[in-house]
Amino acid sequence: MASSSYSNPPCAACKFLRRKCLPSCSFAPYFPPEEPTKFANVHKIFGASNVSKLLNEIPPHQREDAVNSLAYEAEARLKDPVYGCVGAISVLQRQVLHLQKELDATNADLMLYANNDAAHSYQVTSNSTLYNGEESNPGLILPYASPWNNSSSNDSKSM
Amino acid sequence: MASSSYSNPPCAACKFLRRKCLPSCSFAPYFPPEEPTKFANVHKIFGASNVSKLLNEIPPHQREDAVNSLAYEAEARLKDPVYGCVGAISVLQRQVLHLQKELDATNADLMLYANNDAAHSYQVTSNSTLYNGEESNPGLILPYASPWNNSSSNDSKSM
Repeated sequence: MASSSYSNPPCAACKFLRRKCLPSCSFAPYFPPEEPTKFANVHKIFGASNVSKLLNEIPPHQREDAVNSLAYEAEARLKDPVYGCVGAISVLQRQVLHLQKELDATNADLMLYANNDAAHSYQVTSNSTLYNGEESNPGLILPYASPWNNSSSNDSKSM
Repeated sequence: MASSSYSNPPCAACKFLRRKCLPSCSFAPYFPPEEPTKFANVHKIFGASNVSKLLNEIPPHQREDAVNSLAYEAEARLKDPVYGCVGAISVLQRQVLHLQKELDATNADLMLYANNDAAHSYQVTSNSTLYNGEESNPGLILPYASPWNNSSSNDSKSM
């Protein structure tokens, strides 16, 4: 009876690169064979070599998140070759500013009512405090500056 | 008298790559010599060859924006090797959701007051309209899904 040895299918990276997928393959944990597009996209935008170097500089327990964020960026760049996911940052930043202004205006109206009703001892809840930019953004600490002046050419960009 | 010919200094890309910067250099318009870090970062994350291919697929009038967004992404990835600028998207999306909830709550309070004051014919301004998710985000059309479930591991991430 001939013996047969079970071998894992090659990971998506090795299949794409047409190479043998060794047990020590550094891509295999993050590029399963059933997700071929993920590696294809990352390869096209970043290159296999750059991804490998990036992963080597990251602790193992964070590599999965790193690969997923690279895959997200790559997909964004393929869908929007000019702005990639930076376009989304610009849109979201404008959205945050818009919502803050709306909230400030609404809080101002609420304060008017609250002052008028002071005689009714209506307890003003925390959401009627006038927010300044910082207080309403307790979590918004971007690690780097806004990509563009928010009144930029992005306005005509369709997303 | 010996003639001298003026030659432009090499662009940042050609200087980095230690090659002659020809008049036809496709990088020169976007990587001026006084910004060496811009190309160094883009080269490290994306690679010169990938950037060149990307630019070739983009109309000339949009290449400057493309290069600047690549530079932004590269810098973000170098500062945050695990999440890059996708981390900022996650933070901003949570911020938008938070602000929307605050706005909805404040508008609800305002409606209470407005109803109570209906006899005073107080004209309710547009910002007291109860927003649903879509109305308060007229511009928020992400080209792709949120990178993560918003209750993800990012919470402990410091930015």
